[in-house]
This record gives sequence, C-alpha cells and structure tokens, in this order.
Amino acid sequence: MHGFSEWSSVKLDTLPVAVAYPRSTEQVSTIARICHKWRVPLIPYSGGSSLEGRTAAPFGGVSMDFVYMDQIIQIHETDMDVIVQPSVQCVDLNDKLKQMGSGLFFRMDPAPSAKIGGMISTNCSGTNAVCYGTMRDWVINLTVVLADGTMVKTRQRPRTCSAGYNLTGLFVGSEGTLGIITEAALKLAVIPENYSVAVVPFNTIHDAVSAATKVIRRGIPVAALELMDGGITRPRVWKEKPTLFLKFAGSKLMLDETIQRVREITESHGSEDFEFAHTEHEQKLLWSARKESLYSLLALRKDGEELYQWRNTDVAVPLSRLADIIVASKEEAAALSLNACVKGHVGDGNFHENITCDGTSPEECKKAKTAVKNMVSRAIGMDGTCTGEHGIGFGKKEALEQELGDKTISFMIHCTLAYKQKILKGILDPHWILNPGKVFDR
Amino acid sequence: MHGFSEWSSVKLDTLPVAVAYPRSTEQVSTIARICHKWRVPLIPYSGGSSLEGRTAAPFGGVSMDFVYMDQIIQIHETDMDVIVQPSVQCVDLNDKLKQMGSGLFFRMDPAPSAKIGGMISTNCSGTNAVCYGTMRDWVINLTVVLADGTMVKTRQRPRTCSAGYNLTGLFVGSEGTLGIITEAALKLAVIPENYSVAVVPFNTIHDAVSAATKVIRRGIPVAALELMDGGITRPRVWKEKPTLFLKFAGSKLMLDETIQRVREITESHGSEDFEFAHTEHEQKLLWSARKESLYSLLALRKDGEELYQWRNTDVAVPLSRLADIIVASKEEAAALSLNACVKGHVGDGNFHENITCDGTSPEECKKAKTAVKNMVSRAIGMDGTCTGEHGIGFGKKEALEQELGDKTISFMIHCTLAYKQKILKGILDPHWILNPGKVFDR
Repeated sequence: MHGFSEWSSVKLDTLPVAVAYPRSTEQVSTIARICHKWRVPLIPYSGGSSLEGRTAAPFGGVSMDFVYMDQIIQIHETDMDVIVQPSVQCVDLNDKLKQMGSGLFFRMDPAPSAKIGGMISTNCSGTNAVCYGTMRDWVINLTVVLADGTMVKTRQRPRTCSAGYNLTGLFVGSEGTLGIITEAALKLAVIPENYSVAVVPFNTIHDAVSAATKVIRRGIPVAALELMDGGITRPRVWKEKPTLFLKFAGSKLMLDETIQRVREITESHGSEDFEFAHTEHEQKLLWSARKESLYSLLALRKDGEELYQWRNTDVAVPLSRLADIIVASKEEAAALSLNACVKGHVGDGNFHENITCDGTSPEECKKAKTAVKNMVSRAIGMDGTCTGEHGIGFGKKEALEQELGDKTISFMIHCTLAYKQKILKGILDPHWILNPGKVFDR
Repeated sequence: MHGFSEWSSVKLDTLPVAVAYPRSTEQVSTIARICHKWRVPLIPYSGGSSLEGRTAAPFGGVSMDFVYMDQIIQIHETDMDVIVQPSVQCVDLNDKLKQMGSGLFFRMDPAPSAKIGGMISTNCSGTNAVCYGTMRDWVINLTVVLADGTMVKTRQRPRTCSAGYNLTGLFVGSEGTLGIITEAALKLAVIPENYSVAVVPFNTIHDAVSAATKVIRRGIPVAALELMDGGITRPRVWKEKPTLFLKFAGSKLMLDETIQRVREITESHGSEDFEFAHTEHEQKLLWSARKESLYSLLALRKDGEELYQWRNTDVAVPLSRLADIIVASKEEAAALSLNACVKGHVGDGNFHENITCDGTSPEECKKAKTAVKNMVSRAIGMDGTCTGEHGIGFGKKEALEQELGDKTISFMIHCTLAYKQKILKGILDPHWILNPGKVFDR
C-alpha cells in the first residue's frame, strides 16, 4: 500500500522497509533526526493518490504515513482561515465547515481522495483553478520538519505578508524533497449563494477551445471551465463530442446573466445544444460526468486491459496553443491506434490525455510511452510545461531536464556559482534522504 | 537620487559610489561578475519609491539603475500575458494595453511611481489585492542574474505549472538580496465592463471595519475595499469620519445588485450616508481621495514639519483583529499627541498608519518611533506581520527578528542543519554584495 499504487501511471516493485505513523510534529522531527543520522530515505505519505509515483520507494527506506495526523486544529471563522494537519481530507474539511454553518469552504477541488499534505506538496490545481488559482495561493503558512529534524514555521497568519523570504512558496510543490509538512494554515473562501452547471457539446475541439477562450477573454465570471472529449463522455448519455463543462457561482441574477452570455458565445461557435441545470440535483448529475470521468474510463477498458497511463500526460501550455496541442496529440494517439481521451482545465491551458492500453503487451506499452513523450516535448516546445498540476514524481524527471535546462536545474540542486557549494536541495537535504528518486536525481 | 529618498520613512546619508545603467541581462551579468569578484555591493534601482529605504546604500557600492531597461518586450493577447523589463512603469503598461484595445490590464494597483522590478522585489499589494491577490500571484516567470553573474530563467510560460521548485516565488519579495530581476512574464486580466465607486462614512472605526468584514464574509464581490480615517479625508470635502472606499467591477446588472447589498450592510452599521458614482467622472473624483491621500497628508503638515513616518507602519493582522489594532494604535498616537492617520486595505487585514511630525524635534521623532515600534509589536502579538506589503528594507530588520524568531531567520540566512553550511542568502550571495544591509544583517 505504501510503495505501490494502482493509480499511478508509473510503477515500481521496490517497497519501503518500514512504515512510521507519527502523531505530532515532534515525533516527525525525532524520526527525521534518526533517518538523517543513518541515511535512511524518508517518504511522506498522505492520500497516496499521486499519479507520478511520488509515494514510491525506489531506494527503500521509511514511508511516513500521516494517518494519525488528521486533525483540523483550529477554525478561525472571522479570519477566514483554518489550521490543519497533513492527513485532513479536502472533502472532510469542507464537510466540517458546512456542518458548522460557517458559510466557508476550502476552494481547491482535487480528486476526492486527496489530502492536504499531498495537495500542498504537488501545488494542487483542479477544476476551480481557472478562477481561484492553485494551492500556492491558498496556503498561508507551513510548519515544516527539515531533513535533520529541525522544525521551522514559515511565517505568521495574516492573509498578506511581505516579511522575509517566501519559504511557504518554496515548500509548496516541492514533493516532499525539501522538508516534511506537518501543519498548514489555509485561507478559506465564502461559499457562493448559488451554483449552476452547463454542459455544451461542440463539433470540433477547436470550436470548444475557441468558445472557452472567448468566455475567458470577455471576462465572463465562470467558476470552472472544463473540456472533455467524446472518449470520456461516452459512457454517459452525452453525445460523443468535445464537450465543455461550465460551472457558475454567484447571485441568482448574476447566474442568469452569465449563462445567457456564455450561451451566445457557444452558439456562435456552432454548438446547437446548451444544457444547464435548473435544480441542485440536475447540477450534480451534469457535473458528475466530469467528476467521475476516471471511473468512466475504467469502465471502458476491455478484459485484460490495464490502466497503463492514467492522466499521466498532464501538460500545460500558453492559452493560444491549447487547441493545437490537443488536436496534434489526439491525432498521434489515433495514428498509433491508442485509446486516448482528453480532459482539460481549459482556462489554465492545462490538460490531461488519458491513455488506456493493454499493460501486458510490450508493444502497446511502448506506443503509449511514445505518445506521452511526444506530447510532453510538444508542450515544452510551445513554451509550456511537462506538468501543470501533477508534479514530477519519478515519472517525469527527464521531462523536467528537457524543460528547464541544465542551468536552472543545477540552480535548484547545486549551486552554479563559482565556489560550487550546493544550495536548495543539496543543502536542505545533503544526504538525499527526503523522498529520494523524485523530481531530480542526485 | 540613488541613495537618498524623501519618500522613505528611514533615511541614510551614505551614498553609492557609482551608478550603473545596464541595457540588457548580459550587461547586468557582467556587472555582477565584476562586483562579485571585487566584493562591491550592488543595489538594484527601478522606481525608487521604496518606503523602507530599499534603494539606500549603507555600505556604498554600485546602484544599478534600470532606466534603460524599460521595454515591454512581448504582449501575448490570447495567452493573456506580457513580458517586460524591470523599469516598465505599471501605469505605462496599462496605458499601452489600453491603446492597443486589448481589453486587458495588469491588475496590481500600487502607488503611481511604482515600476515592475520594485513591485516584484517587494511582492507589491495595493488596493486590488483583496479581490485579486498580490504580485506573487501575477508573476509567471523571471529571468534573474545571481550574485556571481549566472543567468537563470525560473520556468516557462504556461499559467499553471508544477514542474520543479518554485524559484519564481523565492525571488518575488526578496528585495534584491538573492538575485537581480532583469525580465518578467506577467499574467494579464480582462478589464471589467463597468466600475463603480462608493464612499461611506461611519461613526467609529469599529463600525467601518465590521461593515467591511460583513461585506467580505457574505462573499459580495468588491474589487477594492479601503478604509481611511478622518485625518486623511480631512483636506477633501468629505466628512471627518472613518470612511470606507469601495470599488465595484462587473456588468451593469451585477453592479446594481452589489451596490444595493453593500448599502444594506453599511446602513445596518449606522452609516447614514452612502455616496456612489453615477458617471466615470464621479468615480474618479470619489476614488481620488483615496489615491491622493499622501498628497493630502503632505498638505496638512505645518511649516517646518517634515514627513517623518510616512506609511511606515504598514502591518497586517488576521481579519478579526483589524479594528482592535487600529483603535489601539490611534489611541496611542493620540496619547503621544502625534498627528496620525489610518489607511487600510481592510480585506487583507493590512493597514498603514501615517504619522507626520516635526523631523527637527528629537522628542517628536522619538515619540513617532515609539508609536511605530509598539504598533509593530502589537501586530506580531496578534499573529500578524510587521509588513503586509512594503517589505523590510533596512527599517524593519529588528521587527523581522521579533516576528519570525531565530530559527526561521537562520533558516533563511544560514543553514540550521547540524553541518552548518549556509543556505539561501548565505549561498546565493556568499559575499553579501546584493543589496546589503536590507532584510537581515550578516
């Protein structure tokens, strides 16, 4: 369970030699001190749903499972923030805030299994990011245990701060390789009065992306703006066409106006169908096709087919290149006779290609690998990135090198200054015991 | 001009020994290489409007003035981003975007003199931050020259990215002490269809802050939410009362609804007066009292009075403590017979106390210093920060120590791990030549 994951698109057989279950920051510090002394790898573990093998143990070592550090420590309603431990599930946090009648929620919308620790260490994004930003924008401060057991709090609790270096932002997205997050203060947002959802099929991906881009360029306030192609929408009753899923949030009046304006745009891009939810039940039903797209994809696979590459091809490009890269990548998948579907956070220029293929066939696996590799190269060639939200893990280390080049990577690991000391990774974790084998190699 | 600033609340007599005027990243690199070799301090200079003496030269050295690196290099309309050099003025960038008819703008709203380089190095905030975040949220990537002349680009250009460490966020807010910013890609936003502005006086600061907090807690979409007290509003025709300045953005329908809802809240907090702009001209007029508050303050000073502490007391606290700290700080100023006014970005819990006093009177200066020091301590005691947006410069180094404590500060400067190597500042700038004497001392 702690070294292998069916979800992950990259898999390893190596397992950790032990699992530690700390119950406090102090215990994490003690464990780190011991591991540091004896050079034992330490792999933080919370939700375990990483898609890039972040919790895998290529060098054995200790998996540090935060399951007993799952407390919501404080909720400050007036300050609109909350202090949590790493194993709090995002969904549970929002349930708790709802039960209290606080009118507040935590704005990220990851896969349901995601926990705060992992969401921080990958800089989680999800469907709400187009309007509300990524995890980095919602973390106020962190308590972090460094490789040798030193405990550090990155900053105090006001929503805005210019005091000293942005250590919070340094640890967010560092995938457990610079320090171990044991506590976090998070910003909360006000739950919108009303939501609505619309589902709009288009004839081509270019039409769908053009319509989405126009919605954004006109500044029409959408809460989420997702694209799925025929492949994924197939198991539902929806038409097998590239489809935009839109979420709206605000007052009744605002929603009516916004939906009307979006409709005019989608019609001008050849969509004849505009289904929107009149009730909360209908909303859930419409949105479920997006939310459950993975399960739909699983249901599609033939007997003996394994989920080889699931969402692995998370890449992001500048908005103007989104339709091009989606079309090119789908064409390549088709040429290779791969079953590939697209799911995109259109507003961020971030999308996922989901490939299912027979994991027992070396030839199929090779084709899928080629398709992924080419898509990543394509994204990088468009001034994009090999990952918009899933992170590097051990699956995309080569892609990261290709993307950033030697100079920036050695800046991250070693010091490129003349005196050749090591910085960041090299200094914060000199024995490379924190989540080794991920993001970069030594 | 390069070492001394009338604007700054802290002043030094020392001057730089030379001013360098680079015209490219390569020239910056050459200058850095030479300064690194000969251990000459390097002080980046763009707008020169720092309030905490960031451009001062306590150890002499070279002031690096970016006046010839003032180009908007690329505007990507569809990608909604722009690539600029450090000396581009925020106001000029927005004028250019307007002239082009792009419908886009850069969302930060600093003092009119601010330039992009300085805005990045202080993590600029301003009146729009309540709704749209701070500078950190709008910088996509940076080209940075390190202390020894190494050139690094932090990442590529998609709006979302999880590839490798967040080097961009490390340099934003580092006040020129970790590297020199020579180029930046910035996210743009869509200009709202309509704006409106309202000005609402209250009987007490508690009433004003409570009303503002309620607006935020109800999730009513305001574009800016500023508080000014009687002192500052005095030179205008406004009533001498604590006053909220609100900005609204969106469609006509949205604005009408939003303004109506805000009005209900302000009335329930005892405000009898709610003035809002019907025309663009009226908007400008109403907002000008906020925008020109510094000049109003200057106009207030008596003959011989110098602007001793202007905006120096920028602090931020969790929202629930905002009214308390404002009232306590104003009471203390009154007890010390100081002329003090308050200007606050209420939605962020960030505010400025402006003190004017006779700079030639040692007694007055001492009292002002005491008031500032106590307010900073008060903010830190409330889990707040000594600076929400102005940064540390050389005026708040002691406050930073008080706020973060030895452990976090030595994490920023030196490595606190057992083997005692130095990290971050210590490694990136081993000879402390980059903007020395600011943020921390060696």
